[in-house]
Amino acid sequence: MSESRPVADRPLVIVGVGLIGASLGLALKAAGYEGEVVGYSRSSETLSTAKSRGVVDRVEAELAEAVRGAGVVVLTTPMRAMPGILETLSQHLERDTIVTDGGSVKASFVEAARTFFSDSLDRIVPGHPVAGREHSGVDAGDATLYRDHRVILTPLTETDPAATAHVRSLWQRCGSEVVELDVATHDAVLAASSHLPHYAAFGLVDMFASRPEKAGIFRFAAGGFRDFTRVASSDPVMWRDIALCNTDAILSELDAYVDALTRLRKLVAEQDADALEALFTNARDTRNAWLSELEDPTP
Amino acid sequence: MSESRPVADRPLVIVGVGLIGASLGLALKAAGYEGEVVGYSRSSETLSTAKSRGVVDRVEAELAEAVRGAGVVVLTTPMRAMPGILETLSQHLERDTIVTDGGSVKASFVEAARTFFSDSLDRIVPGHPVAGREHSGVDAGDATLYRDHRVILTPLTETDPAATAHVRSLWQRCGSEVVELDVATHDAVLAASSHLPHYAAFGLVDMFASRPEKAGIFRFAAGGFRDFTRVASSDPVMWRDIALCNTDAILSELDAYVDALTRLRKLVAEQDADALEALFTNARDTRNAWLSELEDPTP
Repeated sequence: MSESRPVADRPLVIVGVGLIGASLGLALKAAGYEGEVVGYSRSSETLSTAKSRGVVDRVEAELAEAVRGAGVVVLTTPMRAMPGILETLSQHLERDTIVTDGGSVKASFVEAARTFFSDSLDRIVPGHPVAGREHSGVDAGDATLYRDHRVILTPLTETDPAATAHVRSLWQRCGSEVVELDVATHDAVLAASSHLPHYAAFGLVDMFASRPEKAGIFRFAAGGFRDFTRVASSDPVMWRDIALCNTDAILSELDAYVDALTRLRKLVAEQDADALEALFTNARDTRNAWLSELEDPTP
Repeated sequence: MSESRPVADRPLVIVGVGLIGASLGLALKAAGYEGEVVGYSRSSETLSTAKSRGVVDRVEAELAEAVRGAGVVVLTTPMRAMPGILETLSQHLERDTIVTDGGSVKASFVEAARTFFSDSLDRIVPGHPVAGREHSGVDAGDATLYRDHRVILTPLTETDPAATAHVRSLWQRCGSEVVELDVATHDAVLAASSHLPHYAAFGLVDMFASRPEKAGIFRFAAGGFRDFTRVASSDPVMWRDIALCNTDAILSELDAYVDALTRLRKLVAEQDADALEALFTNARDTRNAWLSELEDPTP
């Protein structure tokens, strides 16, 4: 294979057209992106919807066909599908095709990339748009999903800075603020700020679901419960894969959380009014300070 | 003391003009309630704001003065203040003054009422508006807080049905759906649907607040974290008192939750993909079914 046009002039291929991939296609189109955007999915229904919603310009049911001549390939499938896809891609891409992804865990993607692209790691730009919704699938795709959200790139020492810059510019066109982190920091930080809250919410709803008196519990659940558990409506396959790909960091956060709840339990059991008030005040003040910083984007 | 007018024609006194009390005053006024509404608070600043915002018609800095000739007294202070207030009220109310409250735990209110109104329990109507906001204080008062929210009344066997009916009608004027539960069921159900999520959120934020790397965690926290932790911005004194008043039920829920997280941890550690996907799917489907019922109010 040979392709002489620069990557920016060749098709951008979205592999996996669910919430994340479809939102990327829609956001690029809404931003006036003029290149061809191609969509691949194992599901013909997803491809049909992607085409009819204008998520992509062209759909392909064969991965090899989808990525032919591609300038950039973006993997937005569940994470455990990525190693198999990277293996296939390694046999079909141009030498200069940039490979990036939207997975929530970066070490597992990097490990697979090092396996299947060991002699061309310069093209690998691991990425993670820190944005989500509790709805999933191509129908949930939204051109505004990434606007004012952060995208984290975790380039390797081998990554070509020009490849990173190209991926950065794509996300910036979607309205995102792009930052760079190293892989290990990314996976540790996201285990705390994102993965733990998801598993805490899934665990709480699953616990109530199995109770005989669950009808009464849900009947009197109000806005606090609704917000606390919102992320428990997220895609089960995506969150299964995150648990399987970021296992050590998630175990560490779950252990820390169980310890924190056990300490809180002790204060309740001891009726330690002062310590309870101090803990709740610290939590409230910390959260409110965080919200203030969000509203005031100056550093 | 003697008062011959019916309770409905005498002042309604709100003892504690924070989020809950101020919202009640504003909601009644917005609904065209024509009786006099009186506000009492230990804080002169709160009283001044309550008066200037039109939360109440009249403010009083002395509890005995505030409740003089009252038809209904509504306690909306933090719960640990209620026994002392009930003791004072027992020396100053008319024989037929109805006493109700807005506390989140009912057994502790009932216990105090049985202590200080042992010979006139017919007037006691324990209540709990299941509505809240993460902001507290008189400034957070909102005439719409109770609209389309449930208010739970837990009348005693001794309570005069006419007193319950009167309190019910007040909340209905605020747009609430009023239901009745027994005290023990109320406290157990709310420990699950409300108290546990609050303590789980307080515990999570407090845990991150003490970490050296907290700036990074909060920097990359997104919408899921924001919603999960929203209730951690709630009033620390209110939630301290709930922990001290509903201790056994809360300990039981915290224990169950730690068990649930420990089971989830085991599935992650064992990389049990099928069981993880099943757990997350069960949680998602349960939550979505609950949301569907909320949107479809038919029984």
